[in-house]
Amino acid sequence: MAAKRKAKKPETAESMAAQQREISVSEFFLKNRHLLGFDSPAKALGTAVKEAVDNSLDAAEEAGILPEISVEIRQLTAKRFRMTVIDNGPGIVQAQIPKIFAKLLYGSKFHRLKMSRGQQGIGISAAGMYGQLTTGQATQIISKTKGKKLAQSVLVQIDTRTNKPVLLKETEVEWCPEFSPYDAVADKEKRTVRYAHGTLVSIEMEGSYRRGKLSVDEYIKQSAIVNPHLQLYYRVIMEKDAEELEEQELDMCWTTYFRVLKHLPDLPMEIKPHPHGVELGILMQMLQDSPSRTLRGALSEDFSRVSGPAANKICEAAGLNPKANPRRIAHHESEALYTAIQEVKLMRPPTDCLSPIGEDDLLAGMKKEVDADFYTATTRNPTVYRGNPFQVEVALAYAKPGQEEVNADDPVRVMRFANRVPLLYMGGACAMTKSVAGVKWKSYGLNHPKGGVPQGPVVLMLHIASVWVPFTSESKEAIAHYPEIIKELTFALQDVGRKLSTFLSKRKRAAEQARKRNYIEMYIPHMALGIAEIMDLDEKQEVRIVDQLTDMLEKTHLET
Amino acid sequence: MAAKRKAKKPETAESMAAQQREISVSEFFLKNRHLLGFDSPAKALGTAVKEAVDNSLDAAEEAGILPEISVEIRQLTAKRFRMTVIDNGPGIVQAQIPKIFAKLLYGSKFHRLKMSRGQQGIGISAAGMYGQLTTGQATQIISKTKGKKLAQSVLVQIDTRTNKPVLLKETEVEWCPEFSPYDAVADKEKRTVRYAHGTLVSIEMEGSYRRGKLSVDEYIKQSAIVNPHLQLYYRVIMEKDAEELEEQELDMCWTTYFRVLKHLPDLPMEIKPHPHGVELGILMQMLQDSPSRTLRGALSEDFSRVSGPAANKICEAAGLNPKANPRRIAHHESEALYTAIQEVKLMRPPTDCLSPIGEDDLLAGMKKEVDADFYTATTRNPTVYRGNPFQVEVALAYAKPGQEEVNADDPVRVMRFANRVPLLYMGGACAMTKSVAGVKWKSYGLNHPKGGVPQGPVVLMLHIASVWVPFTSESKEAIAHYPEIIKELTFALQDVGRKLSTFLSKRKRAAEQARKRNYIEMYIPHMALGIAEIMDLDEKQEVRIVDQLTDMLEKTHLET
Repeated sequence: MAAKRKAKKPETAESMAAQQREISVSEFFLKNRHLLGFDSPAKALGTAVKEAVDNSLDAAEEAGILPEISVEIRQLTAKRFRMTVIDNGPGIVQAQIPKIFAKLLYGSKFHRLKMSRGQQGIGISAAGMYGQLTTGQATQIISKTKGKKLAQSVLVQIDTRTNKPVLLKETEVEWCPEFSPYDAVADKEKRTVRYAHGTLVSIEMEGSYRRGKLSVDEYIKQSAIVNPHLQLYYRVIMEKDAEELEEQELDMCWTTYFRVLKHLPDLPMEIKPHPHGVELGILMQMLQDSPSRTLRGALSEDFSRVSGPAANKICEAAGLNPKANPRRIAHHESEALYTAIQEVKLMRPPTDCLSPIGEDDLLAGMKKEVDADFYTATTRNPTVYRGNPFQVEVALAYAKPGQEEVNADDPVRVMRFANRVPLLYMGGACAMTKSVAGVKWKSYGLNHPKGGVPQGPVVLMLHIASVWVPFTSESKEAIAHYPEIIKELTFALQDVGRKLSTFLSKRKRAAEQARKRNYIEMYIPHMALGIAEIMDLDEKQEVRIVDQLTDMLEKTHLET
Repeated sequence: MAAKRKAKKPETAESMAAQQREISVSEFFLKNRHLLGFDSPAKALGTAVKEAVDNSLDAAEEAGILPEISVEIRQLTAKRFRMTVIDNGPGIVQAQIPKIFAKLLYGSKFHRLKMSRGQQGIGISAAGMYGQLTTGQATQIISKTKGKKLAQSVLVQIDTRTNKPVLLKETEVEWCPEFSPYDAVADKEKRTVRYAHGTLVSIEMEGSYRRGKLSVDEYIKQSAIVNPHLQLYYRVIMEKDAEELEEQELDMCWTTYFRVLKHLPDLPMEIKPHPHGVELGILMQMLQDSPSRTLRGALSEDFSRVSGPAANKICEAAGLNPKANPRRIAHHESEALYTAIQEVKLMRPPTDCLSPIGEDDLLAGMKKEVDADFYTATTRNPTVYRGNPFQVEVALAYAKPGQEEVNADDPVRVMRFANRVPLLYMGGACAMTKSVAGVKWKSYGLNHPKGGVPQGPVVLMLHIASVWVPFTSESKEAIAHYPEIIKELTFALQDVGRKLSTFLSKRKRAAEQARKRNYIEMYIPHMALGIAEIMDLDEKQEVRIVDQLTDMLEKTHLET
């Protein structure tokens, strides 16, 4: 046995103090990169594409542009890939490019309550950081804003020790070369795409490309389903293809997901915090920061749903002067104020901040996905968790027999979406899966093993739209188990479950009736013939007997 | 229907730029506090206790002190609690107190490879931040280091906008008042505890106290099991008790978990990164930072398991001069170096950096937990994921019939531990649960529904010890699904499974034999009597026949 190394002598408070220091947020996530969705090469590639596409969609929609995005994955060596995403969005102002792509916790979406795909200011910088970690290469960005003649081309890395961008190169260039997606299946015409403005981001990284339920392909397909206003071009070029094919042939590799809606969804509104969802500490902070000079002003201007009279009522309940300085209240009487706020009745938060997919588009998406005998969808009314408005939607399809995708003995297939983003990984940890498992599907006609998800040829699509989606990790793959969210999901699932149950019972009854009718049609003529022979009836009488017998049997049997 | 508010006009690149800004790590986690384990009042209280106790244990062990910790939870109003943890650790140097307790991402454990409970520098500051958010109150710390006459008393809050501590009050005080835990059950003597040095941390927060499998009680109990060298005093005082009981009676509420080991476990060693676990980007960074002036020096001094000759071999394989400046290599030839490192054979990382619980202590802990007919445990040899040494251990108990805790039809009970910390939440997302579900328990004699955990009166304890445990979120409740970790867990589970199988077959055989012997003992005398009568034998012959029959039957039946 090898001798153990001698243990270090014990630490003291002083020797421990000498080791204590700050950890930069980049260092933290570099070491914990699985938290961001970069735990394996296959998942890393998917996460990177997702972060880039989500950003492109958010930017285009905010700018009122119908989004058009191309995604290319190109294998460079066995384990190394380059992901390039180009969009027709508004572009990014030059000074912001380095920070947006090479600084964690930077962006425009965190400090507001507004429904969007991104919300953390981490994703795309994390993808770049992963590329840098695994290949040493910088993130390349080319971006052109409206009115500018040339685009900015930027090469940037992240200094993980300080979480600051390091600009390696910055030049003005002609905006992206045109590219020519040619969809061999859907679109026989070759088309050339050239955007007036937009952003290209390209990251080289260690990766692995696979097909299947957890693949980039699946993310792209599902994104097209829940974003019917998106036109998307997608191609994957493996090392072998690149060697063997001409550039013109590579153009044939594009798959086009055509948009089916020619207009943008309703633009979601930004809202202010609702007083009932604000914790004491946040209330204190908001009073401290208020631009208002009076407590009443702060209450009615910084929060949603607080009218002047409501603000007065709150002040009265708290025993505070409405004209008091909010900064003073922040320190001394915030707790009384907080208690009063909980007691005063206020309208619920406004819900035009949410832009659900809607039952029609959900059904249309579902019909693209699965060939079924029965489809149904439901969009619940908006409600609130921790002061944040949210809304859930569920669609259900009962597949035709013989569909490849589904199988009567398999668990039902659950497709999860949050703010129109497909969630592929970590289904087991998601409030959506938990809600599906929690509904009593047996009473709706499905087999349902204890504690698990139900079984059957069923596909479920679940969507949550919220100004702030609570994810279980920074990789945004699963929804946290907030009771309010699980409750809403359960109601929506029960609703489609009841409709499924009605369909299944009707179908069962119809099958039963068909079977019985079949018997009647088969045997009555023989019975009539027998009776006619015994009683020596003529043909006309025989026909009448057939009619009467049929009528009688249908009445007694088919209506039960 | 209320008119929709008019949508804002579309954004431009310029208007979006104006909204982009930095997000402080405190703001981020304040909004995402469920990531840190503060999603519900009940869980928040448990998480806060866990973070404080883990810190106390780490500090005492590093300072070579046998840990003694008291934990008090006191209900103040219906929804408000105060948690106070006092330890006999080395104390904290005055200047460090504010940052350790009111700054996220600050500490001594992140920038090293060493087995410890804390590893992020987030936990205790997050607990204080949650207290501040829900009650507006500051964290109180009293700490006394060795040799100082007085203790430092500090009141500190966190400025979430900047992630910096705000010192509210700092005074010198007599070190904590003595406290008198009196264990009504285990220890009839009242004892007074007064430490020579240590730290007290006290946080007021919104909370909820519950019993059961996810409670603070359970965390405390399991902590005592896997830390047999820990002495722990614990009491919960509800509002009602505090009103009704005298202080002396409240002293009777302490439960004492006595230590059963009088010495510390082996102190784990700190190690340097192993070259095979270092990604290209980290390699570049390390070369850049190396204090060595030559590449050979950097390789052999900054990494573990690289001898001088091994360093030469790597340089040769990369076609690089061993005397080259590592900073130059970092920029130009790091990829060649990286490839060469992967190709050169090196010893695996040293494993004296790990301090497993060990089979004996695991069994002892298990025996405390459950009254069983069969116990077994296995500690695997250390191995490596992403360059990080780790080691897994599993104990299994097959409970006596009638044990309350376990039931033949219920799923087996799985207790999870990482670096001696009990993991209570998020079992569904944990690599340990996945490993348990993945083993073929049917072949070891347990019922095992497809895809789930096996069923039976079985308790499993799983432990991973590592210099860096990869958790699925900052709340450190579940282990990420690294294939190397799942593989080791599976081997360990199969090992205890085989032993269980042997026990269960033996027991089945023994039961079978006992049943047969029972028959033989019951009927042979009657048969012998019959034969004796028929054949008119004397008593001696009858006895011989009994012996012969018994012998014959045992041979034929019992040995099959």
